[in-house]
Amino acid sequence: VLEGSNRPTDGARELVIAVDANGADLGPGEVAAGAALAAKRGVRVLLFGPASELAEHRHERLEVIDAPVSIAKSADPARAARSTPESSIVQAAQAVASGRAHALVCGGGTGAALAAGLFNVGRQPGIYRPALALALPVPRHPVTLLDVGANAEVRTEHLVQFAFMGAAFAQAVLDVAHPRVGLLSNGRERTRGSRLLIETLAELEQRAAQTQLFKLVGYVEGDDVVSGVADVIVTDGLTGNIVLKVTEGVSQTMIDAIKDAARSSSLAKLGGALLRPALGGFRAQLDPEGQGGAYLLGLRRLAVVPHGRFTREGFCQAILRAQQGAQQDLPARTHKALQQAGALKQVPLSARAASLPKAQ
Amino acid sequence: VLEGSNRPTDGARELVIAVDANGADLGPGEVAAGAALAAKRGVRVLLFGPASELAEHRHERLEVIDAPVSIAKSADPARAARSTPESSIVQAAQAVASGRAHALVCGGGTGAALAAGLFNVGRQPGIYRPALALALPVPRHPVTLLDVGANAEVRTEHLVQFAFMGAAFAQAVLDVAHPRVGLLSNGRERTRGSRLLIETLAELEQRAAQTQLFKLVGYVEGDDVVSGVADVIVTDGLTGNIVLKVTEGVSQTMIDAIKDAARSSSLAKLGGALLRPALGGFRAQLDPEGQGGAYLLGLRRLAVVPHGRFTREGFCQAILRAQQGAQQDLPARTHKALQQAGALKQVPLSARAASLPKAQ
Repeated sequence: VLEGSNRPTDGARELVIAVDANGADLGPGEVAAGAALAAKRGVRVLLFGPASELAEHRHERLEVIDAPVSIAKSADPARAARSTPESSIVQAAQAVASGRAHALVCGGGTGAALAAGLFNVGRQPGIYRPALALALPVPRHPVTLLDVGANAEVRTEHLVQFAFMGAAFAQAVLDVAHPRVGLLSNGRERTRGSRLLIETLAELEQRAAQTQLFKLVGYVEGDDVVSGVADVIVTDGLTGNIVLKVTEGVSQTMIDAIKDAARSSSLAKLGGALLRPALGGFRAQLDPEGQGGAYLLGLRRLAVVPHGRFTREGFCQAILRAQQGAQQDLPARTHKALQQAGALKQVPLSARAASLPKAQ
Repeated sequence: VLEGSNRPTDGARELVIAVDANGADLGPGEVAAGAALAAKRGVRVLLFGPASELAEHRHERLEVIDAPVSIAKSADPARAARSTPESSIVQAAQAVASGRAHALVCGGGTGAALAAGLFNVGRQPGIYRPALALALPVPRHPVTLLDVGANAEVRTEHLVQFAFMGAAFAQAVLDVAHPRVGLLSNGRERTRGSRLLIETLAELEQRAAQTQLFKLVGYVEGDDVVSGVADVIVTDGLTGNIVLKVTEGVSQTMIDAIKDAARSSSLAKLGGALLRPALGGFRAQLDPEGQGGAYLLGLRRLAVVPHGRFTREGFCQAILRAQQGAQQDLPARTHKALQQAGALKQVPLSARAASLPKAQ
């Protein structure tokens, strides 16, 4: 139905990515530079932000729409997204909702992206809750963790859908042919977990038997974030956020300690200098910019939220991944798998007319 | 009431630590070697295990009780603890229950320790649930995390008590004069967290105002496990277990990657060799043996559970910490603070006679 679906190569030129330039730590100009890099690599970009700060980065596939108003720093993004239709993120989301663009990239944080996405692009029919997914830059074993913050409290049916959403994402955007999905718990044994997790595991086993999309590996543990036993790890947004920040905090502590050690004496300094080239590849694998940022799944179109501190390389990567998600028609792929497994939310007949996709 | 309370120096010689030698990866002999080290440092030890394997480690303050039966590898420790009174862990726990010993050290895992401790030593009056605490070996900022596995599901009153139990532990055993306590959440702002966490934060604020034991810092995030903003971090046993294993997994991945880098070329090898001495202090700080293991809080007496893979140094450390916990009378300290803050579980009058401490 969507442009580009099943025609990834031919359709690539038709796809348009709407990008909100406001909110990045390095300013709208850095996002524009990333958009220009993506345009050079063949992506058509609609860039929303303060035109005066974006003008320097020109390309024939890059169109700038002057939208200087930002809600990126708003304390209440939901309210700001409703009351500020002229803001860059709302205009970008509306471009996606109208079909003018096919995916959204938002430099202004997950709160603004989620609010503007929900109000304008809308939830995908049959999906209970959008979730935020992160492709963790784990050396050798990249793993997609979701939810990492959209839903502090969840029910079984939400977690079941997160498994499908995460698997479809890993397949379409990260090129994992047949993702292995794990449910995060406090042990591998079936007897572990809370009542919610025990019920979810049973339900997931039933649904996994009705899909070709992924292979369920069952419960996984905290250290499986780095062990490589799963490509997708499902959890609630509270636990996912904690896991993410523990991962970041522990990694940074280790890096700082090694840097400290390498400054502690002349011999250590020499040792650090000799070791640095070999550590370079490892550091590159840990670089979060390579993963494009966080992914908002469960809307009618894919939304990508690069981290605010990203450079132009990270924003370019986010735009390329958004294009791949649109090319592979991630929302339709997710919907189809959920439908086959009988895991879609049942929409009352009276509501169906209103929930037809807007962007056809 | 207990021997040694308020008399840490005079009473030190009177205190006895009951140690279960079965279950350690390196065998009962390694636990006995650790017990002998602790005995040399002035601790009286009752050592339960296969006498034939313990005989080589003799000391006048080390008494061996032949108890060859082990339930350390039981799939159902609760059942095994009930049905195997002759097992070493049950005999050790009974020595504590009878007052012959004043704290328990168990090399056979947390399941066996919790089961034997609950059935024999018993829950401390006024405590809802025992919790498992771990003093994480974070460089520069050791932090006590609890619960790390005893309770997959908790209520507000449990988490509130965990704050007091963890703070009393940090003060009595880790020598933190005035512990700072944080509640693990997905953000610092009061609006974050699940309903359970929001309710717990409000309740903790009320209780913290009624105690001198600790200072409540409010919500903390995942990266605060290493940031040093809190000495004690409170969470449920499911999340705590996940955080612990993420921490271990990420640390190990980083260490492995550095080792790989240091083997990748001749120059890198030289660099690694030059850097190694400076990294030694950091590695020593990460060594979990220095923290003695996990601590089972909320029983009538302190129980320490060294990791099964510990060497004699780790078992010695566990015994020294157990002695310090007994000297400082950790259970009485916890009880007093909970009482002052009005956070004790109310025991029906009819049950009070039965719940008087056994070990007087």
